[in-house]
Amino acid sequence: MSSAAPDSQPGAVGYRGEAPVYENMIAIDRESPESIQKQIRRQIAIGIVNRQYPLHRPLPSIRQLSTELKVSVTTVALAYDGLKQDGFVESRNRSGFFINPDVLTDPGHALTPDATAELAAPRDRIDYRAFFRDRSFDLQHVAKPADCLVRYRYPFVCGLIDPSLFPIQSWRECVRDSVNVVEVRNWAADYSNTDDQMLIEQLIQRVLSKRGIVAHPDEVLVTVGGQQALYLAIRLLLSPGEIIGVEDPGYPDAINMASMERVRVRRLPVDRDGLVLSDALNDCKCLFVTPTHQFPTTVTMPLDRKLELLEITKRNGQFVIEDDYESDISFDLTPPQALKGLDGWGNVIYIGTLSKSLMPGLRIGYLVADREFIREARALRHHLIRHPPVNNQRSVALFLQRGYFDRFVANLTKIYRQRCAAMHDALEFHFPGASAKPEYGGAIIWLRLPEESDADILRDLVEADGVFFETGGFTFSDEKNNRNHIRLGYSVIGESLISEGIEKIAKAVPQAHSG
Amino acid sequence: MSSAAPDSQPGAVGYRGEAPVYENMIAIDRESPESIQKQIRRQIAIGIVNRQYPLHRPLPSIRQLSTELKVSVTTVALAYDGLKQDGFVESRNRSGFFINPDVLTDPGHALTPDATAELAAPRDRIDYRAFFRDRSFDLQHVAKPADCLVRYRYPFVCGLIDPSLFPIQSWRECVRDSVNVVEVRNWAADYSNTDDQMLIEQLIQRVLSKRGIVAHPDEVLVTVGGQQALYLAIRLLLSPGEIIGVEDPGYPDAINMASMERVRVRRLPVDRDGLVLSDALNDCKCLFVTPTHQFPTTVTMPLDRKLELLEITKRNGQFVIEDDYESDISFDLTPPQALKGLDGWGNVIYIGTLSKSLMPGLRIGYLVADREFIREARALRHHLIRHPPVNNQRSVALFLQRGYFDRFVANLTKIYRQRCAAMHDALEFHFPGASAKPEYGGAIIWLRLPEESDADILRDLVEADGVFFETGGFTFSDEKNNRNHIRLGYSVIGESLISEGIEKIAKAVPQAHSG
Repeated sequence: MSSAAPDSQPGAVGYRGEAPVYENMIAIDRESPESIQKQIRRQIAIGIVNRQYPLHRPLPSIRQLSTELKVSVTTVALAYDGLKQDGFVESRNRSGFFINPDVLTDPGHALTPDATAELAAPRDRIDYRAFFRDRSFDLQHVAKPADCLVRYRYPFVCGLIDPSLFPIQSWRECVRDSVNVVEVRNWAADYSNTDDQMLIEQLIQRVLSKRGIVAHPDEVLVTVGGQQALYLAIRLLLSPGEIIGVEDPGYPDAINMASMERVRVRRLPVDRDGLVLSDALNDCKCLFVTPTHQFPTTVTMPLDRKLELLEITKRNGQFVIEDDYESDISFDLTPPQALKGLDGWGNVIYIGTLSKSLMPGLRIGYLVADREFIREARALRHHLIRHPPVNNQRSVALFLQRGYFDRFVANLTKIYRQRCAAMHDALEFHFPGASAKPEYGGAIIWLRLPEESDADILRDLVEADGVFFETGGFTFSDEKNNRNHIRLGYSVIGESLISEGIEKIAKAVPQAHSG
Repeated sequence: MSSAAPDSQPGAVGYRGEAPVYENMIAIDRESPESIQKQIRRQIAIGIVNRQYPLHRPLPSIRQLSTELKVSVTTVALAYDGLKQDGFVESRNRSGFFINPDVLTDPGHALTPDATAELAAPRDRIDYRAFFRDRSFDLQHVAKPADCLVRYRYPFVCGLIDPSLFPIQSWRECVRDSVNVVEVRNWAADYSNTDDQMLIEQLIQRVLSKRGIVAHPDEVLVTVGGQQALYLAIRLLLSPGEIIGVEDPGYPDAINMASMERVRVRRLPVDRDGLVLSDALNDCKCLFVTPTHQFPTTVTMPLDRKLELLEITKRNGQFVIEDDYESDISFDLTPPQALKGLDGWGNVIYIGTLSKSLMPGLRIGYLVADREFIREARALRHHLIRHPPVNNQRSVALFLQRGYFDRFVANLTKIYRQRCAAMHDALEFHFPGASAKPEYGGAIIWLRLPEESDADILRDLVEADGVFFETGGFTFSDEKNNRNHIRLGYSVIGESLISEGIEKIAKAVPQAHSG
């Protein structure tokens, strides 16, 4: 917001013609019993409260409004007088009327009875609630306060990246280089039917290769985060009434999507080796699994069970959606093979994301599957959003190509490994044997509190101490009897604060009983 | 791609540990009848053709592969020898083996019979086609060649923006300023439940205000382009079997989305004033309309008919989805009021996009509707993609706030007005009375060719002359009898080329008869 920005030059030539057209924004009803002056006054007041007008630029002049609205100068002047008396506007010598900033911070303080009535009273409006096909608003999902990084001293939050670790300089370089004449020419093109080829190649060479996945460019699709990848897979493979198998405990959004698509859900138990391969999975058309790093327990499925899972699903003619959500952060130099890397028959749909290893806000995810599946997923993506933004695809491609991503992930891995050790030590001290140390990597630890504990109560108890964590009960089908689980993320909490934070949780546990 | 980039330092410390793990990428089957040497040779060849390995970096050394794969040095050396003989790799003194770039430009030339068989033969793979719930790949939609800006001398393409007009410097400034420590901290947060508030405010003040729309921040939702806005609206408001009214001719993607959601479509005729208000619309639950700038005819609905449409739909209890897709480019200083701006009852869902006035590749669209609708649309958006990328939201917000958008649109408008006049003159000369000059603005002209013409044939005829346009027949329910319509965009064709291009079309028309 440099002072040279055009915004600070109200009325500068070249902008006046592009200013809001108040004629359209203020509707005068000449047959209304309400005076025209009051109509103007009321509508400008509402516009101000609704942030309809720029705060630091003058409101339209009396003369301008009078001309545009075809009313007398006196009428407009009286309307502004009223707005001034009510505290909505202030006049500045020779510069005209400006919004009084106070009215925006405390919208109630100056409202006239007229304006209050208009703002508060439910007008004759259609009621949408009766008409919605779905009510996805009511579905339960992981919620993080938007400000959890600043609000909490001990943010054991999951799925975020420590902004202080993000290599801003390298990222800025890639963004700058993706905004040049040649690249912008490419943005102008229609990207519905193709992704950024540099990004696809870099994903294949630098990301998928580490997961043991050999893919042709036609077998990879860029998505708006892992979330869209999962939606496309569920939507394409499952019709209403068909059954998807989901781990128990497992990822709630997979269950939410199934419910949106009227797909039935079979919950499948998990043990220390991940999904249990029982007969219960036989009548699922498709399984949703997290073999490398089970959500939420973080356990890793051993190679033997992976091979057995592939054998069973091939025999049954079933699809497997593999969500490899935290795979880039691997404490071992040789991470376990992804299920997709072992998939000879082609029934595995692989979901990856850069949200956990680059930045969640960029929303770069990807699907890896057979050509025929990717072709159809691309067409479905076209109908839902056309394509993910091309500028971000290119920036990320450059970030990968120049090795910055590898370096960043190496750095994250080093730091997370230290934090994980600190977490493990603190948890073993306060909750011996109750937590699963992630075998593979990642940035989350799963903790089982004493049976009688209620994680919701615990969370409320420690919030005042500046501690945040996610509860785990809602990842189980039997939520009621699993309220004693919590997820502790260590991707954004500094190592030095870990033992203090865990101690605060431990101290509150005895009070965190329900009933 | 500066030469200082880490990518050009193969084997630099810090990257070696992050190099692809070949142990996972090459699977040795010790029980196979195929020799281990041949297995390695074949799999590396496939990896090269699939672009699995970086082109300008050495392939893994003989020693490295021997260690990782636990096979003898001689076996690997023999495998590389075979690859060299087949032309897949070349050895460079002391730097190891590199991919022979020729093999990527002509993948067939050097394949051994072994590798060819493996690459070409359909392995035992699952056949997806039998399992898909939808086949959106088969739906018809507007297709533009990705390279139409370079391939055609006369690109009368629709919906793109002339890259030479895009203010790269201003955009780069905004992108740079959105990548600073504070902003990156914000990216780390969870944006599922909130959009960039600066972008929302700027859309309200600088974009919606010009359309006569007064909106509260809670009444606006940012989407991945207008496409997602439309999908959210259709999905929320219409259940399978219910009826949506769509103009005839009208927007094919609205029909495609309806078909995906098993929603029935009623086609509603269009005249010179846009949608005809007949009894045919009475049993629709929802109407999809383009009142300001009808798609594809570009006619504008007069105020009286807009008010009547609102009255009828209120009486019937119907929803109206208003797509205001080209609204920012208005040749008049006072553009016609959007339907949403007149909507007292709240049954209008407004769809806007910056794709036609900023850049299609950025995918910034928005929905404006009652709070209750937006709340639900946000929840649905969460389940589909979580949220649009936050970095782009902030960059666009800055671009709007600093007045660059207003300036860019003013410039586009000036240029488009000139081009539109040139188009109109050329069309009146060659096709008197056959084209509709856009009343409102925008960047497209709709042309009705003589009855017996077939636009598909015409398009193929003029393609050799470097002319590209879109056919219009598929926007009609009766496609067969409307093959004589075409859409001519003038957003990317230079003014000086317009009359030449139109002349080439006119000359080909007499040959463009079907049958």
